[in-house]
Amino acid sequence: MTKWVHTFGRGGAEGRAEMRNLLGGKGAGLAEMCTLGLPVPPGFTISTEVCTWFYENGKTYPPDLEDQVATGLKSIERALGARFGDADNPLLVSVRSGARVSMPGMMDTVLNLGLNDNSVEGLSRRSGDERFAYDSYRRFIQMYGQVVLGIEHHQFEDLIENHKLDTGLTLDTELSAEDWKIIVNGFKDVVLQERGHPFPQQPREQLWGAIGAVLGSWMNPRAVTYRRLHEIPADWGTAVNVQAMVFGNMGQDCATGVAFTRDPSTGKNELYGEFLVNAQGEDVVAGIRTPQHLTIAGKEANKSTLPAMEEVMPAVLQELRRVRQVLEDHYRDMQDIEFTVQRGKLWMLQTRSGKRTAQAALKIAVSLVEEGVIDRQEAVRRIEPASLDQLLHPTLDPRAKTTILTRGLPASPGAASGKVVFSAEEAESLAAHGEAVILARVETSPEDIHGMHAAKGILTTRGGMTSHAAVVARGMGRPCVAGAGDLHIDYTTRKMTARATHITAGEVITIDGSTGEVMLGEVPTIQPKLSGDFATLMGWADGLRRMKVRANAETPLDARTARRFGAEGIGLCRTEHMFFEADRIGPIRRVIMADDERGRRAGLAELLPMQRQDFAELFRIMRGLPVTIRLLDPPFHEFLPKTDAEFEEMARLTERSVAQVRQRAHALIETNPMLGHRGCRLGITYPEIYEMQAMAIFEAAVLVTKENGAGVEPEIMLPLIATKKELDILKAMIDRVGKSVMEHAGVTVPYLVGTMIELPRAALRAEEIAATADFFSFGTNDLTQTVFGLSRDDAASFLGAYQRLGIFERDPFVTLDPAGVGELVRIAVERGRAARPGLKLGICGEHGGDPASIRFCQEVGLDYVSCSPYRVPIARLAVAQAALAGECQDATA
Amino acid sequence: MTKWVHTFGRGGAEGRAEMRNLLGGKGAGLAEMCTLGLPVPPGFTISTEVCTWFYENGKTYPPDLEDQVATGLKSIERALGARFGDADNPLLVSVRSGARVSMPGMMDTVLNLGLNDNSVEGLSRRSGDERFAYDSYRRFIQMYGQVVLGIEHHQFEDLIENHKLDTGLTLDTELSAEDWKIIVNGFKDVVLQERGHPFPQQPREQLWGAIGAVLGSWMNPRAVTYRRLHEIPADWGTAVNVQAMVFGNMGQDCATGVAFTRDPSTGKNELYGEFLVNAQGEDVVAGIRTPQHLTIAGKEANKSTLPAMEEVMPAVLQELRRVRQVLEDHYRDMQDIEFTVQRGKLWMLQTRSGKRTAQAALKIAVSLVEEGVIDRQEAVRRIEPASLDQLLHPTLDPRAKTTILTRGLPASPGAASGKVVFSAEEAESLAAHGEAVILARVETSPEDIHGMHAAKGILTTRGGMTSHAAVVARGMGRPCVAGAGDLHIDYTTRKMTARATHITAGEVITIDGSTGEVMLGEVPTIQPKLSGDFATLMGWADGLRRMKVRANAETPLDARTARRFGAEGIGLCRTEHMFFEADRIGPIRRVIMADDERGRRAGLAELLPMQRQDFAELFRIMRGLPVTIRLLDPPFHEFLPKTDAEFEEMARLTERSVAQVRQRAHALIETNPMLGHRGCRLGITYPEIYEMQAMAIFEAAVLVTKENGAGVEPEIMLPLIATKKELDILKAMIDRVGKSVMEHAGVTVPYLVGTMIELPRAALRAEEIAATADFFSFGTNDLTQTVFGLSRDDAASFLGAYQRLGIFERDPFVTLDPAGVGELVRIAVERGRAARPGLKLGICGEHGGDPASIRFCQEVGLDYVSCSPYRVPIARLAVAQAALAGECQDATA
Repeated sequence: MTKWVHTFGRGGAEGRAEMRNLLGGKGAGLAEMCTLGLPVPPGFTISTEVCTWFYENGKTYPPDLEDQVATGLKSIERALGARFGDADNPLLVSVRSGARVSMPGMMDTVLNLGLNDNSVEGLSRRSGDERFAYDSYRRFIQMYGQVVLGIEHHQFEDLIENHKLDTGLTLDTELSAEDWKIIVNGFKDVVLQERGHPFPQQPREQLWGAIGAVLGSWMNPRAVTYRRLHEIPADWGTAVNVQAMVFGNMGQDCATGVAFTRDPSTGKNELYGEFLVNAQGEDVVAGIRTPQHLTIAGKEANKSTLPAMEEVMPAVLQELRRVRQVLEDHYRDMQDIEFTVQRGKLWMLQTRSGKRTAQAALKIAVSLVEEGVIDRQEAVRRIEPASLDQLLHPTLDPRAKTTILTRGLPASPGAASGKVVFSAEEAESLAAHGEAVILARVETSPEDIHGMHAAKGILTTRGGMTSHAAVVARGMGRPCVAGAGDLHIDYTTRKMTARATHITAGEVITIDGSTGEVMLGEVPTIQPKLSGDFATLMGWADGLRRMKVRANAETPLDARTARRFGAEGIGLCRTEHMFFEADRIGPIRRVIMADDERGRRAGLAELLPMQRQDFAELFRIMRGLPVTIRLLDPPFHEFLPKTDAEFEEMARLTERSVAQVRQRAHALIETNPMLGHRGCRLGITYPEIYEMQAMAIFEAAVLVTKENGAGVEPEIMLPLIATKKELDILKAMIDRVGKSVMEHAGVTVPYLVGTMIELPRAALRAEEIAATADFFSFGTNDLTQTVFGLSRDDAASFLGAYQRLGIFERDPFVTLDPAGVGELVRIAVERGRAARPGLKLGICGEHGGDPASIRFCQEVGLDYVSCSPYRVPIARLAVAQAALAGECQDATA
Repeated sequence: MTKWVHTFGRGGAEGRAEMRNLLGGKGAGLAEMCTLGLPVPPGFTISTEVCTWFYENGKTYPPDLEDQVATGLKSIERALGARFGDADNPLLVSVRSGARVSMPGMMDTVLNLGLNDNSVEGLSRRSGDERFAYDSYRRFIQMYGQVVLGIEHHQFEDLIENHKLDTGLTLDTELSAEDWKIIVNGFKDVVLQERGHPFPQQPREQLWGAIGAVLGSWMNPRAVTYRRLHEIPADWGTAVNVQAMVFGNMGQDCATGVAFTRDPSTGKNELYGEFLVNAQGEDVVAGIRTPQHLTIAGKEANKSTLPAMEEVMPAVLQELRRVRQVLEDHYRDMQDIEFTVQRGKLWMLQTRSGKRTAQAALKIAVSLVEEGVIDRQEAVRRIEPASLDQLLHPTLDPRAKTTILTRGLPASPGAASGKVVFSAEEAESLAAHGEAVILARVETSPEDIHGMHAAKGILTTRGGMTSHAAVVARGMGRPCVAGAGDLHIDYTTRKMTARATHITAGEVITIDGSTGEVMLGEVPTIQPKLSGDFATLMGWADGLRRMKVRANAETPLDARTARRFGAEGIGLCRTEHMFFEADRIGPIRRVIMADDERGRRAGLAELLPMQRQDFAELFRIMRGLPVTIRLLDPPFHEFLPKTDAEFEEMARLTERSVAQVRQRAHALIETNPMLGHRGCRLGITYPEIYEMQAMAIFEAAVLVTKENGAGVEPEIMLPLIATKKELDILKAMIDRVGKSVMEHAGVTVPYLVGTMIELPRAALRAEEIAATADFFSFGTNDLTQTVFGLSRDDAASFLGAYQRLGIFERDPFVTLDPAGVGELVRIAVERGRAARPGLKLGICGEHGGDPASIRFCQEVGLDYVSCSPYRVPIARLAVAQAALAGECQDATA
């Protein structure tokens, strides 16, 4: 027989903290507190398996559940000496949901259950407070009516308001027992009228109604949405907790409150919380009365004028401090607790691991290690890697009022305010005058990079989390909101419009790249501070990991940022980004306009010294660390102008007619540029381009080796390889150039030649490709595009629907799809290592900075991940956690 | 010790016909003829392995080759009693290349080798003809000078011309022995002057020079090009044949000639050939003298006035007929032979399987079966499937003179002439007036289909063998030349230009889609005739195959053509093609412009009856055969207008402003439409579209089932599936619609729901997808695009270079890439069948009509291939051959 019901109470419980999946967070916490001997009102938990059964069997219950619930009720009655529906000593219970993870406010609760026309008298007698009893009864009917019977809130509220009008009273507290009796009768009439049958007087019927309502609320729309947003599977289900009521609203010696065992904002090792005298839990939530602080220190720190619990209920606070110690010693973590004080006695209603800011999380983890409570591995395990973003970017001041214009995707974290501009040129020129600007574009292209750099933040109306704007912004550490589809930008009128609101160029807006919000006007931000705890914890993390963390970087600024954040090399230097600088775009355009190889070589000769300098600078900054340089990847047309003026300029520079330039530009248009004449295909058809780049790399390597004696480790990477032959041809050319440069200089530089694995064919043919390649770097952005046949620039129009319908559990451009893309990675790893056991393996797609994807990388045995400089700390931590998870698996395997 | 040299001669040979890979075609044929006891001048063959060694070892020879060649020479000397360089009875030899397959005229030959100042006198004495001897000597120096020493042709020819001027003679035949002696001396001076050393007098030195030159000619540019065009691997190498000379130019009882054992044009069972009296082989090739026919019948049939061999050398002809019989009995196939008659004696110089027209090939194969020489399987094996194209399409009259304007890709076979037009509209309106038109476009789009249909042929300047134009043209059976990159089309001036030649709209051009040629003016064509042999052979083929052959067809015309050509169902009906008809484009545009589902449903309601009728018609035509219908696949923007006038029309039709229409069109532009919002993604985001299509299919199926009682087998196919969930959602919808339509009609129609496998992810997840899918159809066009990351519309700019460099052995859009795309197909087949053993598997990409790809389909165990209607016969034959090849493999395995 399945055990569906688990009791808890004085002297112990059938459940344990570890049974969280079965009992939900609340149920497991209550059981554990009972076992610890803490004061918890007795009750029982109906397991999450009942919820699963309920939905799998047409909303019915397991056959033996009714008996088990009856037995559970008996045990509560026995513990309290009370009886369900009793006129003398009635048992009253609360019925609450409780899922595996907290879903605050998403599901339903019924309090004071067990009251009826009979037992309300019993409550009145036992409490000696008739007004309290009838107030409780009317609260019950009201809550039950709404939650279980689906009667609208206002139906009840109107009745109270009418009664107040009739009697000339205005506040709830002015209503007497008699008033509440009248209202109770009125409420019962509402139920009869609305539902066609009287309010249920049988406590058992009430109980089953409430259980059904709580289970039903698991599928209410707001819970479904919450789960989708927080990636909580529907089949986890919720437990139902039935627990004896305790009352914080029976008088001045009663109270209700919430507390954290440490400060959730700073992590300081101090009890932190608030309470209300003579109140029920909902009153705290309703926010009508101002809560009081628990400690005098808390009261003073928050400049409160209300007395602290330490002053008015010192014995209770003493007891609370004892409970805090018991819980922290037991759970070895900061707890978030709820309690009620009934007639001077403390009752615990909940304990769970407390939510905290990133800064507090670091402080608490480091403190717990110092206190000897947890070890370093545990500390590393406890920090959510993504939360570190909060520490690295400015955040909006949470106290500020905001007017939200629209929402897009949270594409690059941080907040920024500035004058909105609609072109990279405007962004640059305003920024040059010291203005803060936000660059708003339909979408961005490599030509906008200078403007993106000049801007404080970037906003686009098209494109997803891995659109050009998003990727570049994350790389630069600029906040970015991408794909704000409701927003229409009109470049001609220099206006943007979201529904009825028009914003003209020059108006100030604020974007929050952590939430995707776009706000009107300037919203104050808080600058991040990196604490000593950060360095301590990252140090521990670094000691635990096997995989290296590199950065995707091409500018000296990026490279320095990456090193500062602890990158152990550059995993991806996109050389084409170097071609967009003002002094480079001319020569590269001459290359594109050339009629023959000779003409191309002339343009390339101009680029050679610049590229050499670029690489030398990177080698200097990354001294002692490997630098992976990818040769030219994008198709030619990305370097072409867009406006008429630019076309004229290009014609002048390349000594061609505008018509010729336009004709060439037209010839370069591709139907699917992502699948077009790019990557190593350029290197094959125009070998002189890659030859120039190889020469610049080797010359720079020789130069810096001469300066420093050693420490230069270039890894030359070829993009878009689909066949071994492409790699053979290009590697032969690179080796030839390298030999010639090094012989000429009399210096030997160790170097590697490897390939991106970003096409399904390359993954499948990894064994033969590895015969030539020294390393593989998985370009999982393009691999995701080709495996799914999904353009990341075009996916926005249906990605939302796909996630809503559960077709994609996660955006595959954010978290690597393990079943499809991952299988190809796995195949490539196996086949590549079969041919070359020491093959170096890394990942340089955007997934390299995503913790879930990093776990996958650890599992398949990559040597390093590479990500945007600003994600390096996140990756370091995630890699350490992945290593720890791997060890656990190994240990249990 | 490796045997590099294989001798042959009177009484037998060391080689055999089966050793063709080692000895080349010529060497193997000579050896075999010796073994058959036919008269062959003795000689030896240096194997193709020497060629491979030569190129793998820096153009050097295997160490033991010299000895083996010497031994070979000895055996010739022994057989003839002659000696190399002898002044009395000199041995003269020819040195000829001979690869595994014939490469006519591509490589070099040296005749009369062994002549020097000494042996020329011997030849003179033995032949009794001094003039002949010195003529032979000068021919040798001239040929050797060109081929071995690299001296230009004109250097020698000038000298002859000068001598003629000096002596007042005009014809070669007028020159005496003395004249030739003077010229021989002059030639020797040319050699000394040009090369700095005298003409080699040592026959052994001459021989090694000639062997080196023949091997070297394997890599000359024209041979390399020929191999690329004919897909001959470079590592096959050539053999070198050294053979005693026989002379057809020693007098009137001498001759040289070529013959086919049957008529190569018609296949008629008659000796067919030509000869020249007193001539060497080159004279036939040079075409200066008119050759005579062998038989009186041949002479009469060709209205020749010159006497036949039957008349002038009846004994020789008798002998030739005997040889013919021996060869046909032995080879059991029509042979192409070369012979020389020296002083009345017939000598055989070559035999090989003869080239023939498709018609002749059919006739010969069927005759040989009737004659009991070969069996049906052998007959089926002997027809090159691609050659059937000649029978199905008009061909250019080979006698016509042509002026070639430019060349493109031979994208759809057949020839057509007509007035050139540059828009679909023009094509339609001219065609409506009965004009033949050729539609020339930069590239075509679905909107051009009506114009393509109206045109006699299609010409594009961009795109490859699987571009839109090529695919549609093949489907329609229209000739098409695609990607003629030298041609520039200017829509504004309605002109096209190839280098200096301008063609204005309305001028007549001719295109040959079998060769890719574009010609000025009208070139007469020959209409195809399908012979009884065709039906006979196709019947035999059908009896041998397991895989079915279906057609890709959506119009009634296509479907009828397909059935006429023997298609066993429709493998791909692209429903979107039905939306481009004049009466459909309005409603589909209303769907696209709609603001909400309700608006879309209104447009769809108009389309429903039309689609129903389309499907009903197809079901009627294909009665009793399965019809696979693919639901809407292309992205919305393919249905949008292009010109201003069309935008205005669309605005009017959809009751929107032009600005609104343009805005919507702009919003629908995608960066990579191939990877965008298309396929099942449309069905997921706009379920009402697929719902309408499903309803039309079921209603049509019900209708035709009621008409006929049964015989309707719809197979509904979902495009671009990447995840099981997509298929689950859409199949549920289709099943629901089907149930409702069938219940309402009271008729049950058996149907299947399946999916295209055209994305790598679908192939990898085939096991879970097969849990829902009734069938898989491999869309290898898109699968090739995604596996390679290669857009078929954009590949033209580098595909040429990729083939030249050997990166792609074949265009992967023409022949399925077995190593990459093929591996995914194999994975999908295995995984799909693991989940659902009876899973129906087919292919509907362009590869379905390509014989090499069909072999792959047979190997992996597909159930059917589907191709353009006009390729159905080719596919039927190729499938039968693949089945035969599979049986052979099974037998040897």
